[in-house]
Amino acid sequence: MEGENTFKQWKKQSLNRLDLSKKGSIDRDVANIVSFINSSEHHFTTSSCSGRIILIDGVSDRTDVQKQNCSWLFVTHEKCKKDDVVAALQKSSGDAVFKFEPCVLHVQCRQLEDAQLLHSVAINSGFRNSGVTIGKKGKIIMAVRSTHCLEVPLSHKGQVLVSEEYIDFLVGVANSKMDENLKRIERFYNCLKSALEPEEVKTHLKEEQSDKKTVYRRRRKRIQDSAGSDGGVKNQSESDQEDDLECELTLFS
Amino acid sequence: MEGENTFKQWKKQSLNRLDLSKKGSIDRDVANIVSFINSSEHHFTTSSCSGRIILIDGVSDRTDVQKQNCSWLFVTHEKCKKDDVVAALQKSSGDAVFKFEPCVLHVQCRQLEDAQLLHSVAINSGFRNSGVTIGKKGKIIMAVRSTHCLEVPLSHKGQVLVSEEYIDFLVGVANSKMDENLKRIERFYNCLKSALEPEEVKTHLKEEQSDKKTVYRRRRKRIQDSAGSDGGVKNQSESDQEDDLECELTLFS
Repeated sequence: MEGENTFKQWKKQSLNRLDLSKKGSIDRDVANIVSFINSSEHHFTTSSCSGRIILIDGVSDRTDVQKQNCSWLFVTHEKCKKDDVVAALQKSSGDAVFKFEPCVLHVQCRQLEDAQLLHSVAINSGFRNSGVTIGKKGKIIMAVRSTHCLEVPLSHKGQVLVSEEYIDFLVGVANSKMDENLKRIERFYNCLKSALEPEEVKTHLKEEQSDKKTVYRRRRKRIQDSAGSDGGVKNQSESDQEDDLECELTLFS
Repeated sequence: MEGENTFKQWKKQSLNRLDLSKKGSIDRDVANIVSFINSSEHHFTTSSCSGRIILIDGVSDRTDVQKQNCSWLFVTHEKCKKDDVVAALQKSSGDAVFKFEPCVLHVQCRQLEDAQLLHSVAINSGFRNSGVTIGKKGKIIMAVRSTHCLEVPLSHKGQVLVSEEYIDFLVGVANSKMDENLKRIERFYNCLKSALEPEEVKTHLKEEQSDKKTVYRRRRKRIQDSAGSDGGVKNQSESDQEDDLECELTLFS
């Protein structure tokens, strides 16, 4: 019971906290997922980003790119336009870097099994860098992460190093990645809804003590059916072992 | 006892398996770490990469970059030279992409506590995208991952889009990231050795049933002392919650 109360308290504190991100609000393309997760009794989100295209200006000759040393010249959570990027790049006085960063979600889970369920959904939706972390005092966090990205230096000491034609091509590549990113988000949401259907949650609570394996196998089958093909970019060290890492949700003995 | 035998069997099978990576051997800069981890009774590596700089040629107009659709024009696990990259780029017939990929390790762990220990070491060493995954049949895998990368399109349909001066600058940036990567590997190795000292392992086995928390707190303190500063690039959605994710290794109730 103590663990239950603790999770409830954490959830209440977290959802009442101010949004401390630069933007100060939930990104539109993950608003549904965030809302859905937070309606579950077993999960709540601690941070989220639907994905973004940014141009940041770093201090020249600094190899450790820390957030605090950079100024943001441009940011969008949608597709971008070449003219906007070119205009922003003119303001660079250091080393500007153009980046595509995919969707990231951090979800705190009541129990490890809840994290495993979410992990399975994430992996099957293309978020192949997802993983569980254990925080202070037993906080269980599932980080939903993807591998596809762009990181492209465009200027050095304020001097632009590439042509406008290159920027035009780069913007096209970034926008394609944003398209793929949105597909993955949609896949994740559909898969998640299927895995956390209300009647299933009720069943889960009833059957929790009697037959855990049956419940999770049913969910896993539904996850696989609804996920569809995985068009994700694989991590470079993904050997056959990564394919073995589909989360079976069987509680380890 | 059954769980113990299972882990031992998995370890034996894994270490006897052929190396199916492109390279076919362990990368030099992680050879020590891999060897050290495999000497532990609680861990073994399932895949590893010390980090690399690569130029891959993808099929033009394909948005889903799958490994099987790409040819490798260039690869090195050390710093690279501009002339080598330029020469390799001349062979591009599709969309060539220049990438820096940091060190990645996958380590199978006997118990969740072993994964938590490794996770704490990884995070403190700068591998901030590390996380635990649960595989089939209860396999516990800790993935050691970093965030810093480069992904730079350089050609389209075989036509090079950037100048040699840009490639020269890009190579400098990639080499700086490789330097930082090697520092993190060294930090990780030192921290790991400290956390898995032989006498500590023996103590761990004896005290396992009596006072888990004390053992883990000692290790955690030593991990923090030996880790030093974290020069890692933070994930874009890292809010204050990410700072809370230092692994305390307290078993959750």
